[in-house]
Amino acid sequence: MPNQTDPLDARRPPTATRRRRADDARVVADVLRRGIDRGDRIGAIDESALTTEFDVSRNTVRDALAILSAEGQIDRSPRVGTHVVRRKAEHGIDALRGLQETLRGLGEVHNEVRVATVLRAPAAVARRLEMSPGDDVVYIERIRRLDDEPISLDLTYLTPDVGIPLLEHDIENTDVFTLLERVSGTRLHSAEQSVEAACADPHSAANLDVPSGTALLLIERLTRLGPTARPVDLEYLRLRSDRISLHATAFRDPQPIGEPR
Amino acid sequence: MPNQTDPLDARRPPTATRRRRADDARVVADVLRRGIDRGDRIGAIDESALTTEFDVSRNTVRDALAILSAEGQIDRSPRVGTHVVRRKAEHGIDALRGLQETLRGLGEVHNEVRVATVLRAPAAVARRLEMSPGDDVVYIERIRRLDDEPISLDLTYLTPDVGIPLLEHDIENTDVFTLLERVSGTRLHSAEQSVEAACADPHSAANLDVPSGTALLLIERLTRLGPTARPVDLEYLRLRSDRISLHATAFRDPQPIGEPR
Repeated sequence: MPNQTDPLDARRPPTATRRRRADDARVVADVLRRGIDRGDRIGAIDESALTTEFDVSRNTVRDALAILSAEGQIDRSPRVGTHVVRRKAEHGIDALRGLQETLRGLGEVHNEVRVATVLRAPAAVARRLEMSPGDDVVYIERIRRLDDEPISLDLTYLTPDVGIPLLEHDIENTDVFTLLERVSGTRLHSAEQSVEAACADPHSAANLDVPSGTALLLIERLTRLGPTARPVDLEYLRLRSDRISLHATAFRDPQPIGEPR
Repeated sequence: MPNQTDPLDARRPPTATRRRRADDARVVADVLRRGIDRGDRIGAIDESALTTEFDVSRNTVRDALAILSAEGQIDRSPRVGTHVVRRKAEHGIDALRGLQETLRGLGEVHNEVRVATVLRAPAAVARRLEMSPGDDVVYIERIRRLDDEPISLDLTYLTPDVGIPLLEHDIENTDVFTLLERVSGTRLHSAEQSVEAACADPHSAANLDVPSGTALLLIERLTRLGPTARPVDLEYLRLRSDRISLHATAFRDPQPIGEPR
């Protein structure tokens, strides 16, 4: 950032050369984005105040706001000015909860069930679910809506012992996690989750009602059931990153017994 | 997926209509992607075998491979055929480790330090670090390379009590986490992490040596130090999703004492 009053000039590495405006705009956008996500920034955004807060030019602030506008986080219109559209929903991935449980209080979750069927498990899916290739597996594909807005496209493979009874239930209005516990009579155990980013291909974008190229979070989640922790549920989730952010708290050392995690 | 032998036709919801090829291609791509990430699939990819495994047409398999090729996960060339480029590095976000600690064994991490300076803390940054707006804050910007390939663009704000001594150390070759523990003489406590997805803007893409529009993971990480868990380190990380995936294990219920987490 320009214009810093630096008492440590002698210590500054030689690589700290002239900043490009794009670098500064990215810093401003990153800090603002998270403030909006958390609800720290709501309503109107004052360009002058940002110029002062971040010690950057008005053009840099405008570049930062253009980034956030392209992401759908703020709205810029000539008469109304710049304002925050809304904060994101937060999805904790350090606890095992379904989307409906996670978004309780933010709106109503409804699932559009596009497919719910039994098919032969692809070898890669069978391996993860500790089945044999070609065994029957239940496959469910849902578009999940929060107050009618699509926020997630979920592909779910279930082992047939829990998956077939689950198909008898109201999968349009109930989390798979809730139903797994209901049909099995045991609690879920844990899930291994992998997170990647993707830019929506045209078809995914159309399904999720966003412009092509919108950033998505891809999550693979292998969920285990009961005291034996057997894998029963392999999911591939595509979440709109403009509507949902993921959260996790990590500890450096194992926590002492009795310490809340 | 087409051609399933479904013993449960009566139970199949009416929404399970004719599948579009793009839907099937996405399923195949999602399952393949994670297999590649994990190292389950290496070397040559056999289109015919995938056609059989997923019970889809040859064109659907080709669409799926086109998705993975665009993501840089596989290489398709006329003479050599289709093969996996490499697996991704895995970054656990349920434990608190620096990138160098995480990638140990996968290659050498080197940090290109673009900025390392003291500046006045923007109000939003000061708030997160429990400082006053305008207080001095140490700002470091690094491009992090694994074996000379840029994989992460990191913006770091540090409270001056730890940040200023840290600037005296070898930040080109050492994780900030390691240095924070060295200069403070105490262990890190924990970090709150938020994860979002972004499609690289042209400037970020140039910094990370990827095509514009490549998917990135944005992580905000607030790291706390010592037994009082005071916030000292606020970071905005931009990770190449084509090189790194994030991992976390979640439990449904609190684990019994003595149970390994």
